[in-house]
Amino acid sequence: MSSDFKIRGVVPPVVVPQLDDGSIDHEAFERHLNRMIDAGIDGLFFLGSSGQVAFFDEETRLEVVREGMRINNGRVPVIAGCIDMQTDAVIAHARSMAELGVDAIVATAPFYAIPGPGVVARHFRAIHEAVDVPLFAYDIPVCVQTKLDWRLLAELGAEGTLAGVKDSSGDDVSFRFLIRENDRIGHPLTLLTGHEVVVDGAYLGGADGSVPGLANIAPEPYVEMWRAAEAGDWARVRELQDYLADLMLITQVTTGVGGYGAGVGAFKTALREMGVFSSNRMPEPVAELEGENVEAIRQVLATCDLL
Amino acid sequence: MSSDFKIRGVVPPVVVPQLDDGSIDHEAFERHLNRMIDAGIDGLFFLGSSGQVAFFDEETRLEVVREGMRINNGRVPVIAGCIDMQTDAVIAHARSMAELGVDAIVATAPFYAIPGPGVVARHFRAIHEAVDVPLFAYDIPVCVQTKLDWRLLAELGAEGTLAGVKDSSGDDVSFRFLIRENDRIGHPLTLLTGHEVVVDGAYLGGADGSVPGLANIAPEPYVEMWRAAEAGDWARVRELQDYLADLMLITQVTTGVGGYGAGVGAFKTALREMGVFSSNRMPEPVAELEGENVEAIRQVLATCDLL
Amino acid sequence: MSSDFKIRGVVPPVVVPQLDDGSIDHEAFERHLNRMIDAGIDGLFFLGSSGQVAFFDEETRLEVVREGMRINNGRVPVIAGCIDMQTDAVIAHARSMAELGVDAIVATAPFYAIPGPGVVARHFRAIHEAVDVPLFAYDIPVCVQTKLDWRLLAELGAEGTLAGVKDSSGDDVSFRFLIRENDRIGHPLTLLTGHEVVVDGAYLGGADGSVPGLANIAPEPYVEMWRAAEAGDWARVRELQDYLADLMLITQVTTGVGGYGAGVGAFKTALREMGVFSSNRMPEPVAELEGENVEAIRQVLATCDLL
Amino acid sequence: MSSDFKIRGVVPPVVVPQLDDGSIDHEAFERHLNRMIDAGIDGLFFLGSSGQVAFFDEETRLEVVREGMRINNGRVPVIAGCIDMQTDAVIAHARSMAELGVDAIVATAPFYAIPGPGVVARHFRAIHEAVDVPLFAYDIPVCVQTKLDWRLLAELGAEGTLAGVKDSSGDDVSFRFLIRENDRIGHPLTLLTGHEVVVDGAYLGGADGSVPGLANIAPEPYVEMWRAAEAGDWARVRELQDYLADLMLITQVTTGVGGYGAGVGAFKTALREMGVFSSNRMPEPVAELEGENVEAIRQVLATCDLL
Repeated sequence: MSSDFKIRGVVPPVVVPQLDDGSIDHEAFERHLNRMIDAGIDGLFFLGSSGQVAFFDEETRLEVVREGMRINNGRVPVIAGCIDMQTDAVIAHARSMAELGVDAIVATAPFYAIPGPGVVARHFRAIHEAVDVPLFAYDIPVCVQTKLDWRLLAELGAEGTLAGVKDSSGDDVSFRFLIRENDRIGHPLTLLTGHEVVVDGAYLGGADGSVPGLANIAPEPYVEMWRAAEAGDWARVRELQDYLADLMLITQVTTGVGGYGAGVGAFKTALREMGVFSSNRMPEPVAELEGENVEAIRQVLATCDLL
Repeated sequence: MSSDFKIRGVVPPVVVPQLDDGSIDHEAFERHLNRMIDAGIDGLFFLGSSGQVAFFDEETRLEVVREGMRINNGRVPVIAGCIDMQTDAVIAHARSMAELGVDAIVATAPFYAIPGPGVVARHFRAIHEAVDVPLFAYDIPVCVQTKLDWRLLAELGAEGTLAGVKDSSGDDVSFRFLIRENDRIGHPLTLLTGHEVVVDGAYLGGADGSVPGLANIAPEPYVEMWRAAEAGDWARVRELQDYLADLMLITQVTTGVGGYGAGVGAFKTALREMGVFSSNRMPEPVAELEGENVEAIRQVLATCDLL
Repeated sequence: MSSDFKIRGVVPPVVVPQLDDGSIDHEAFERHLNRMIDAGIDGLFFLGSSGQVAFFDEETRLEVVREGMRINNGRVPVIAGCIDMQTDAVIAHARSMAELGVDAIVATAPFYAIPGPGVVARHFRAIHEAVDVPLFAYDIPVCVQTKLDWRLLAELGAEGTLAGVKDSSGDDVSFRFLIRENDRIGHPLTLLTGHEVVVDGAYLGGADGSVPGLANIAPEPYVEMWRAAEAGDWARVRELQDYLADLMLITQVTTGVGGYGAGVGAFKTALREMGVFSSNRMPEPVAELEGENVEAIRQVLATCDLL
Repeated sequence: MSSDFKIRGVVPPVVVPQLDDGSIDHEAFERHLNRMIDAGIDGLFFLGSSGQVAFFDEETRLEVVREGMRINNGRVPVIAGCIDMQTDAVIAHARSMAELGVDAIVATAPFYAIPGPGVVARHFRAIHEAVDVPLFAYDIPVCVQTKLDWRLLAELGAEGTLAGVKDSSGDDVSFRFLIRENDRIGHPLTLLTGHEVVVDGAYLGGADGSVPGLANIAPEPYVEMWRAAEAGDWARVRELQDYLADLMLITQVTTGVGGYGAGVGAFKTALREMGVFSSNRMPEPVAELEGENVEAIRQVLATCDLL
């Protein structure tokens, strides 16, 4: 039952361009994916948090992944988020994604209804048993309120339920314990960090790769950082991470906004200003960034030589 | 644009019985609804948190409400939860519920993706504009992480976006401010409390009614409490609430469980022990209560003369 | 070992006036205490959260209580907060207060260093064993991060460790369970609510009294509300609570401030505008309310006929 | 106004040994400090969270630092925590520490009473103005509930209020932004990480050093790790961090305990088992680890060749 799927390196969680009417901007989507694949990324993660999964109905989810796979055309592995409140709905998404032929799927802990003891393990086991696709756990307590315990993750890896973990928990101590335990038990899990500002530390600590939202904007530095890490050139790793930390200030320089609109809103705005997207349109009911906030983002981009 | 729908009194959030294979137990469902309607409840709230909404796919949601409305047969008003992560999905649920002919719908703040300033208001306005059914806001931060501001709720009531609020926030101070403000602006909102243990205080403070999960088990005392409150017999109100607070200990006497499994799990177990449900089956991946936990619940039921 | 100290009714947590140089304003303090005692309050609670305990060194704590007791001159019972991070420091404060002759002391759960299982019980037992003064537990998770479990509180009451509880937890469900359990075990605990906006519900539910910060501003309505509750005149109770809820808007109408400065800051400002205090000076490093915020508070006071 | 005090490298937060009667174990304290200084540590941090500051009254705080400075005898710089609820008390501690001649002091955000906007800045400025000793901000939201904003910290560094930051926030993204901003403004702040399990990443990211509680147990690997980082030998840095992460499992292998008792309790137990401390006595009301928990810790120590 254990999975042989392995992935290493940079796997951007794909931000999805929309036209001003709210529909998906296929032209920009193709431009965007090709730009990242040409930069040398190692995989594509569709329908993560940055990938607007919470806002998409089933039909649009399928549209995003189907179109993404058509554009990708097998160049890199594809992972798809199957994010929903509880197990059955996750399984339904997972079956759709399996039919589309994705290489792996990603699921969070159950949310909305609060899981008690044992529920998280039963959840992941039920998904794994229902769908024959490698399963990643998505550790994102800021969205689902549950922190995944590193010991449970290792146990689920050892038994073949999980193929990997995407860590967006912000708890680097727990992530390090997980990396160590994963090594002790034969490395069943692929461990990816989602914290684009401290990827260098995660690589030094033994992460198998990263899922950096910021790689939508700057894929090449992330690719080069990974390669430098693989080569043991840590001075270069740090230099690139410093650059990328400075670029991440696009999410810190806005005012009067917050949450999803400030984070993904900054990514979309940057991509528009750089000419990759044609609009910074956000999904309803989130407003797009405007006026001085756009100006502030442009200044960060200029400082980073991206305009 | 404003709604004329008003409801007052006891509106239980309907717990849904399942057979041991996980499917809905139609026989028990009919017995359960009739028992509550016969007790004199003032409305039925399907697909709330206790109503397992997080675990049901669209098809099962429709099955629950369709079947519930068939059994109810117009005896009391019907409210249906339209709970999903973001606006579009909520609107899709709302349209289905409108087609089924429910009297009102209930929606939470957006969740999973964190709403920034202004997003909550846009969310409720978008739902209201899309669907011509009275809309209640469901204030349940423990599930969605966002507390609805009482000033915003009053504003959305005054403008006709909201017809009411179901308050499960646990913040009785905020709820009192809302009641006062609602009175000042002409009472556009129907204000219902979801805290079954302190309904008496909410009634004294001016609530229009309650949505007590515990009324699934003891509908008659809740009905009598509401009538006593309407009659100004506060000594009787308190007496009944004391009884119901003691009964609510079914959710406090279990060990080794937590979250949804401890709360709704206790309700289902009590209903089975009382012969209303045929099983205490919980939705996957939540386990049903067993062994000593069942025994502990039976003891509370016995103390309350419900066995 | 059990305490015979009982108190019932309204026990305001005394807000402390300061001169513009930051020292205690003895003249205003005397005026303030006499005004509340003349209004018929049932006790005085010095050095609570509203009583600026966090800002006072040992010397000033002693000054406040010594002076307060001199002014009070035995007219009503006196309770004193002994708030500090851990047990030994609490005990040291408690000994000082015992020497001053207070009728009871109040302590929170340990804070800063996070208590593990069993620590809270050991903490209260150690205080009780060290000092021969009736001990109240102060349940205030917003300040100390630990919610006191109602079962533990009842157990500590039954064994004679605790004489009472001041509940500022905001968790009225838990408070109701505590009231019921306290009744079942012979009412060893005096149970006071600190939520000035929903005191009516707490009285209806069986609370022994209240510790309302707002009673610093409007002692008479709180006294009258308690007496109406004792007389079973719940319509009058509610009417008074509604008035007081509207008055509490002084803490809700300010902008650009928050935390202690918005809450106690509003109390001090109101007391100055009403002529009880001569300054709304706050303890360093908290700034006093100014300008439009003062104006907004004046409007609330005017609406409530307090100007 | 700016400080010239700079420190780099490993600055353990000193765990304080107690005799079974609760008093400070001077013999063990001397052995403990000498062991760390002999290992090559770069400074000593007394009266941090691990240094039991929350449990010590003023007299004991003075005893710890006075005795620590006597033993140290000028071999390494000394930093002392001045932890208390609000500004005046912090200033009082700070004056005592200044008189003892410490090289720098450390203070948190105000706690218990919740700070509103502007309060944190006023707090640190007031301390700095009152005491002529370099001031570090201690960012420890888990204890004080307030996360220090990296922009504010940089501003306070630029103006000379702060000499440095001890980061125990767990928010490595914010810490990286702070490191970058500190570099941009001329490096006024000494930036130390308190996360002993991911010190390697913090060093790679540009931290000036670390304050690892675990260095009480294993000072030499931390010293060697710092020196390897200074030399750019990142493979060795990671190897040492991996070893130390495995050793940190002493805080993860216990059961039935939590909070301070599990964390510092494990440190004290390890030090006793290794013969550095004579007792694992904890400050009241925290219980020391016993039985199987001691055995579990011994197994971790054995795996790490420390028994």
